[in-house]
Amino acid sequence: MTAVAGRVDAASASGNGSNRARRGYASGRDDYLVRLRKIEGQVRGLQRMIEDDRWCPDVVTQIASTTRALQEVAVGLLNDHLHHCVMAAAKRSDAEAEAHLDEVAGTLRQVVRL
Amino acid sequence: MTAVAGRVDAASASGNGSNRARRGYASGRDDYLVRLRKIEGQVRGLQRMIEDDRWCPDVVTQIASTTRALQEVAVGLLNDHLHHCVMAAAKRSDAEAEAHLDEVAGTLRQVVRL
Amino acid sequence: MTAVAGRVDAASASGNGSNRARRGYASGRDDYLVRLRKIEGQVRGLQRMIEDDRWCPDVVTQIASTTRALQEVAVGLLNDHLHHCVMAAAKRSDAEAEAHLDEVAGTLRQVVRL
Amino acid sequence: MTAVAGRVDAASASGNGSNRARRGYASGRDDYLVRLRKIEGQVRGLQRMIEDDRWCPDVVTQIASTTRALQEVAVGLLNDHLHHCVMAAAKRSDAEAEAHLDEVAGTLRQVVRL
Repeated sequence: MTAVAGRVDAASASGNGSNRARRGYASGRDDYLVRLRKIEGQVRGLQRMIEDDRWCPDVVTQIASTTRALQEVAVGLLNDHLHHCVMAAAKRSDAEAEAHLDEVAGTLRQVVRL
Repeated sequence: MTAVAGRVDAASASGNGSNRARRGYASGRDDYLVRLRKIEGQVRGLQRMIEDDRWCPDVVTQIASTTRALQEVAVGLLNDHLHHCVMAAAKRSDAEAEAHLDEVAGTLRQVVRL
Repeated sequence: MTAVAGRVDAASASGNGSNRARRGYASGRDDYLVRLRKIEGQVRGLQRMIEDDRWCPDVVTQIASTTRALQEVAVGLLNDHLHHCVMAAAKRSDAEAEAHLDEVAGTLRQVVRL
Repeated sequence: MTAVAGRVDAASASGNGSNRARRGYASGRDDYLVRLRKIEGQVRGLQRMIEDDRWCPDVVTQIASTTRALQEVAVGLLNDHLHHCVMAAAKRSDAEAEAHLDEVAGTLRQVVRL
């Protein structure tokens, strides 16, 4: 909560904070960007492996590692979303919280592939 | 592109492209490269979504789509590997085929996350 | 920890109704039981397929169907948990809600296999 | 199609031994049955957890464990299938091996959820 308040304050100072506050992941945005840039590098590495005719199982192993890194980001974002956006909605109204949770359920089904 | 020409030359020099035969995916290499470049673009798109403070569930939905595209490549590569490398090994010796299949099983466990 | 202790106390104090209400899935309990009994039947069907020496890919296809049914139950339960237990906690205290969400994140990682 | 017809004919002709040998998993059949009976017990345990109003995340954790056990069986069966049926087919004809591998690819996609 202190963290949330802190982020809102910082965001207000920067002039567009309610937007960021709503997004939930703003405090960890740089961390997510670092991770996604690393994942982008992994995908370019996969292209080089294909260009170099690398052994298929080695390429597949690298794909599995990249996929896992992506899903770590997805679960982190969902978690941040629950901690920030959904909790904030729960304080405003039940209906709003329910609507958010229904959206989370749909997103979760995509992550789990149902 | 230079690398491609070089490798093709090497294959021609060796008289039959056993190099390609071993890799299995060589015939579909360009297709895999196209797909991986598209996936790289998706990962860059994810970075822009984070930079633009996009709504978490939307980002997660895009991650799920990217993950699926990567796993499609993994299953395609494993399939090509079985069709080419493992089948070729099966014609050479049982021991070699068994060794390849053990490697495939280990790779498959990584893809399924066991 | 406080949240967990509180939950246990509340459950002990009531012994049934509020306990169930707090479990979240109580209203859909019969539905979950029906689904799990069907899944149990699918697992017994898998045993018969093995006993009858059925073709491996057919058995694996049935396993994939059973796995999906189980994961549908898992996602349903997580969703109910968020709608009921976590929302109720959010109204009591931020600390309690945070503790619940951390638990949900850990559970979600197990479902996604991270 | 030819491969499939051949398989059915061979099975009818022999009625047991070669049939089992061709199934691939026959040597480990008892092991698979033991594992599936344990999984059946896990699914019954899940029903008791629901009946006892157990804490949702605990139920979901148990479901994740059951799902993993099922997928271990699936990967084991696919692996046995490749080692036995597909390798045997590879020695008979390329066409038969290709037909088997196409079937494996389809099964694999179901396991990975593509």
